[in-house]
Amino acid sequence: MSPERFARISQLLDQRQPDLTLCLESVHKNHNLAALVRTADAVGVHEVHAIWYERHFRMTRGAAVGSEKWVKVNHHDGLQPAIDQLRAEGKQILVTNLSDQAVDFRTIDYTKPTAIILGQERRGVTPEAITAADHQIIIPMVGMAESLNVSVAAAVIMYEAQRQREAAGCYQRPTLPEAERQRVLFEGGHP
Amino acid sequence: MSPERFARISQLLDQRQPDLTLCLESVHKNHNLAALVRTADAVGVHEVHAIWYERHFRMTRGAAVGSEKWVKVNHHDGLQPAIDQLRAEGKQILVTNLSDQAVDFRTIDYTKPTAIILGQERRGVTPEAITAADHQIIIPMVGMAESLNVSVAAAVIMYEAQRQREAAGCYQRPTLPEAERQRVLFEGGHP
Ligand SMILES: C[S@@+](CC[C@H](N)C(=O)[O-])C[C@H]1O[C@@H](n2cnc3c(N)ncnc32)[C@H](O)[C@@H]1O
Ligand SMILES: C[S@@+](CC[C@H](N)C(=O)[O-])C[C@H]1O[C@@H](n2cnc3c(N)ncnc32)[C@H](O)[C@@H]1O
Repeated sequence: MSPERFARISQLLDQRQPDLTLCLESVHKNHNLAALVRTADAVGVHEVHAIWYERHFRMTRGAAVGSEKWVKVNHHDGLQPAIDQLRAEGKQILVTNLSDQAVDFRTIDYTKPTAIILGQERRGVTPEAITAADHQIIIPMVGMAESLNVSVAAAVIMYEAQRQREAAGCYQRPTLPEAERQRVLFEGGHP
Repeated sequence: MSPERFARISQLLDQRQPDLTLCLESVHKNHNLAALVRTADAVGVHEVHAIWYERHFRMTRGAAVGSEKWVKVNHHDGLQPAIDQLRAEGKQILVTNLSDQAVDFRTIDYTKPTAIILGQERRGVTPEAITAADHQIIIPMVGMAESLNVSVAAAVIMYEAQRQREAAGCYQRPTLPEAERQRVLFEGGHP
């Protein structure tokens, strides 16, 4: 690996935010997945969770989504294993939902360890995800469209998290565990 | 038109922000255009501009992009007519560009009349657009991906504008000209 590439990857790893993640419930469309993972990478999200309820879609697990090399995608066959992992990691769980019970997404403190659940393009999140979450959040809308594109909604929320974390100095404090750092340097070193 | 639908459309028109717009330079992909127009509608952008340099793509002008019924799309054959119109409307012109000369997008005052130029998926914005603009703006990124998806970038900037305009009370002051209001009520009244 060239010294420049080593420096670039080291700097990226210094700014990774392992305590910020997404949890995607049956988000199928590849262009949405690709945009989601690309934005996650851009705000320093180090891994995301993808939940597949339908056997059919489990097949597409391998589909390349671009920035995947730099953002780990953990696949799960159901919601519960993902929730258990997120709870064990001490994360607050937020669920995006177009409901009267949802609070404005900007009222949340994203400097805390946080997971954000996003729903399927047509049906949105499951009732189980709503029950499992600490808060329902919504992005305000003033037009005729009833919802935003899922990768757009995720990006708007992630950049609010980025804004808060930037202000709190989170990007100045390396937090990625050393073993994970070494894994990425080893695997990612070769272009 | 039912009284409920009339009330819903009237409320939407009260919150429209005619002095905030997008200018899309050769953004081709339909899923990106659809997401862009949907987000524009959600933050109260009333019309956007689309510039087509290539004859081939002018053909797709008619392509349905979802929320188009509620967000007017003005098509232009070149940049200059669009810039002339935006200047005549007294708008500051911002161009998104991945350059060292670009300032953080959050340093801009979006409560001013504003147009935001976005570029083509592969090539970005043209040098002419950069020259025509008052400021180059960039969304900070800390990962390996070199850019964001265009509809994601537009959404992140539009929601910063929404945040500033909400705080400044812009959504409480109806500003859409009466003739335009009547046009939309007339054309949009029939589902
Ligand atoms: C197209 S929407 C799903 C719409 C679905 N009919 C519903 O009622 O949930 C897909 C996903 O995008 C996210 N989303 C879209 N608009 C949102 C908004 N305004 N606030 C929060 N999340 C949103 C949510 O994760 C949602 O599950
Ligand atoms: C995929 S990018 C174009 C990449 C192109 N190679 C370039 O250098 O501009 C498509 C458009 O998305 C917008 N965009 C993407 N990432 C951005 C960022 N970090 N800041 C501002 N705009 C961005 C810009 O409008 C850009 O023209």
